[in-house]
Amino acid sequence: MKRRDLLKTAALLGSLSLAPKGLAQGAPQNAPALGRRYRNLIVFVYDGFSWEDYAIAQAYARRRLGRTLHLERLLARYPSGLINTYSLTSYVTESSAAGNAFSCGVKTVNGGLAVHADGTPLKPFFAAAKEAGKAVGLVTTTTVTHATPASFVISNKDRNAENEIAEQYLAFGAEVYLGGGDRFFNPERRPDKKDLYGAFQKAGYGVARTLEELRASNASRLLGVFSDSHVPYEVDRRFQGVKVPSLKEMVQAALPRLASYRNGFVLQVEAGRIDHANHLNDPAATLWDVLAADEALELLTAFVDQHPDTLLILVSDHATGVGALYGAGRSYLESSAGIDLLEGQKASFEHMQRVLGNNPDAAQVKEAFRAMKGVSLTDEEAQMVVEALTKKVYRPDGVRYGIQPANTMSWAMVQRNASKPDRPNIGWSSGQHTASPVIALLYGQGLRFLQLGLMDNTHIFRLMGEALGIRYQNPVMSEEEALEILKTRPVGMRHPADVWA
Amino acid sequence: MKRRDLLKTAALLGSLSLAPKGLAQGAPQNAPALGRRYRNLIVFVYDGFSWEDYAIAQAYARRRLGRTLHLERLLARYPSGLINTYSLTSYVTESSAAGNAFSCGVKTVNGGLAVHADGTPLKPFFAAAKEAGKAVGLVTTTTVTHATPASFVISNKDRNAENEIAEQYLAFGAEVYLGGGDRFFNPERRPDKKDLYGAFQKAGYGVARTLEELRASNASRLLGVFSDSHVPYEVDRRFQGVKVPSLKEMVQAALPRLASYRNGFVLQVEAGRIDHANHLNDPAATLWDVLAADEALELLTAFVDQHPDTLLILVSDHATGVGALYGAGRSYLESSAGIDLLEGQKASFEHMQRVLGNNPDAAQVKEAFRAMKGVSLTDEEAQMVVEALTKKVYRPDGVRYGIQPANTMSWAMVQRNASKPDRPNIGWSSGQHTASPVIALLYGQGLRFLQLGLMDNTHIFRLMGEALGIRYQNPVMSEEEALEILKTRPVGMRHPADVWA
Repeated sequence: MKRRDLLKTAALLGSLSLAPKGLAQGAPQNAPALGRRYRNLIVFVYDGFSWEDYAIAQAYARRRLGRTLHLERLLARYPSGLINTYSLTSYVTESSAAGNAFSCGVKTVNGGLAVHADGTPLKPFFAAAKEAGKAVGLVTTTTVTHATPASFVISNKDRNAENEIAEQYLAFGAEVYLGGGDRFFNPERRPDKKDLYGAFQKAGYGVARTLEELRASNASRLLGVFSDSHVPYEVDRRFQGVKVPSLKEMVQAALPRLASYRNGFVLQVEAGRIDHANHLNDPAATLWDVLAADEALELLTAFVDQHPDTLLILVSDHATGVGALYGAGRSYLESSAGIDLLEGQKASFEHMQRVLGNNPDAAQVKEAFRAMKGVSLTDEEAQMVVEALTKKVYRPDGVRYGIQPANTMSWAMVQRNASKPDRPNIGWSSGQHTASPVIALLYGQGLRFLQLGLMDNTHIFRLMGEALGIRYQNPVMSEEEALEILKTRPVGMRHPADVWA
Repeated sequence: MKRRDLLKTAALLGSLSLAPKGLAQGAPQNAPALGRRYRNLIVFVYDGFSWEDYAIAQAYARRRLGRTLHLERLLARYPSGLINTYSLTSYVTESSAAGNAFSCGVKTVNGGLAVHADGTPLKPFFAAAKEAGKAVGLVTTTTVTHATPASFVISNKDRNAENEIAEQYLAFGAEVYLGGGDRFFNPERRPDKKDLYGAFQKAGYGVARTLEELRASNASRLLGVFSDSHVPYEVDRRFQGVKVPSLKEMVQAALPRLASYRNGFVLQVEAGRIDHANHLNDPAATLWDVLAADEALELLTAFVDQHPDTLLILVSDHATGVGALYGAGRSYLESSAGIDLLEGQKASFEHMQRVLGNNPDAAQVKEAFRAMKGVSLTDEEAQMVVEALTKKVYRPDGVRYGIQPANTMSWAMVQRNASKPDRPNIGWSSGQHTASPVIALLYGQGLRFLQLGLMDNTHIFRLMGEALGIRYQNPVMSEEEALEILKTRPVGMRHPADVWA
């Protein structure tokens, strides 16, 4: 039965119908209050981060690195809870609707930034904070113009209009923008040949395009763009010699600049490629981006300790892929092997694709998987990867695993030894976002008795507002209104080019 | 690299090694205290329940049933947190080690009940409660002798020794045992022909073997066994006319009996087949067992409201399969279809296998999927199911999906329409348990400011002890000791017969 048919049926059946009035929404929501104010606000978004990702990183840190995740310590001692992530018309959100829920406090349709489906603009929280005199910073491992950071500062009907969003950033005038996306700033790369770097410099920004430039800069307002598109994965930065700043290094550059402003600041930090790695079903890329986020988190909590007028809110915007360590061996006694075997994984699929190019042979594929994933593929598996890279023949069929050729590369190294795992026993339910509630955590002074529980993601907006004493209400759209609008004018991202939602 | 090699390497490298001393364990644990006592204790275990299961049930309840999950209300308002689930030597636990962590307060090796790998017995919490004068009840949808209930009352090296466990139950003498497992009580079914029903009757128990007998019984001590093995899934009870009590009906029978005891009681309720349905990758079976658990939960919280000297602890013991609703369609706008389409699913794979038998043809398979799963299989997909049922040819290959033929039946109805889902867009990362932290929730008076955070699963033992004022310490085994023992004497379940771990 198609959704449209169900809705028709619902209309016919009226209030007794099986499709209740509230549709996706409706439950009474929990609304905890902080009970106090802060001067500075840091929102740290783990994009696409699931509890399975957490478990794998926690285990890897303990077992292979001999340390406890900073996040594990926070989860044990500070207020944590869960947030529902569904968007206005979908139980599975993408990152812009999730970002809007945080930033604007209302549910929106997937695909637009701080905007309703009928074009009604919403005021993003960092815009309100700027009006209230706060300095503003955005730090991310995605393109700096990507949905999660962008939804906090500007409105745009199309989250993919990143050339335009770069110009909106210039007009908005945040103090710090750090991330990837040279193609949206560089006159040689932009379709309209505009020199955004030059324009930012004219507006008083220092511009850094390498780690060295970032370190050397003493500009108080800063645009840092370190890669053509998204910033390469931590696993490639760490083991493949890819030269970009780590998330921690970007945060290190942002914090003192923002802290120097008299009226306080708001900062969004995004570990944005946990999501991408999960879309790719790439275990090492996910793991190391979570570990890199943990290093940035340690720095941020140290800052909070030194500046107790700062509130840190850590949230995931949704889960992606749910790559899970699964039980292996007799009585699951070999399950931990999946953690140990991750150690042999030293590159992302993204990097391997760069190395292999478009026309590798099976021997090259085998060597790449051996050297970079610590996995010996069979001839058949290597051939599967060759066909994915050279002929766009993807495995498995079906649409669950649709981010190609990466999902095929992941599928090729699936565990085949039931009793003695020789590959990480980690599996993905899909290559897409999922519906589960995700982490919310607060770190700051005076929160000892705060019980968060299960909240709606829009409540993050109210917590931010309470923290800084900034309160306003964006217009609410009902799900019924949104469905009416969607009938006539589908909005949102392209498909399947929008796979990294 | 094999685990054994890693351990050897670790031994050689000493304290600087990559395999840190603590291995699976080691992090400082959070240990919240209740700060008060209770007379009665109810532990409700959602076996194999993940946050993805929660999200699907929450959405289905809202959207198709027009109501809010009782669990959603509790998560919003009462202390909730997360528990780490790993066992002594494995990041993925099975249900007996998870049960032991709750019941005995120490980590054990997968596979034994209230026992260490060297045979050292542990005292389960309900045994200590019985000594302290509490009445004891076990209510489950699995065999009543299954790991999760059994680990709360008796010790046995082999969780699969259910014939013996039935006799241990008789000796233990709990007031209420309700669940499945006729084969372990019925003289015609037991290998040793012992009449356990007769023995329980001699010991003063009423014995009920049907819903009618359960309702009619006025015995104060009760053994209820309602099916040969596990109690059939809720989806089959509800839509296929399978005649067994619901979990709620079993709880309804247990509560007044236990409440009549002067010194209070301890009760474990288990929604035990959420786990099984997830092993099978069966979306409707999982959904309806979660919804059935929610009805039992409502009854339990009503009891707590009327008996405010009662503490209810709700926990999952681990996640299984992580069946996740995944994003579908342009901008994920068609994702909710997966919720709507679940309505057409009216039977479990278990029931379909009973109906189809061992030698169905493709037409029969198609009709069964149409009628019972609301899905039109292609010829190729139907043939896939035929081959699984008749020739044990299973899809996909690899060991992630190893619970057959069910995982193949699930795979056959995988979503193939990227833009307009015509089958529930729910996928599984595997057919096995996973490593993620899972739900812990408390319901009872006087808990308003309790912040749970992330705990170890062994802390449930300490919360139970504090609630009833029963404190003792079971012997602790180190992971190193356990690994030494496992080298020479592998313990635990059979494989692959132990797939329902």
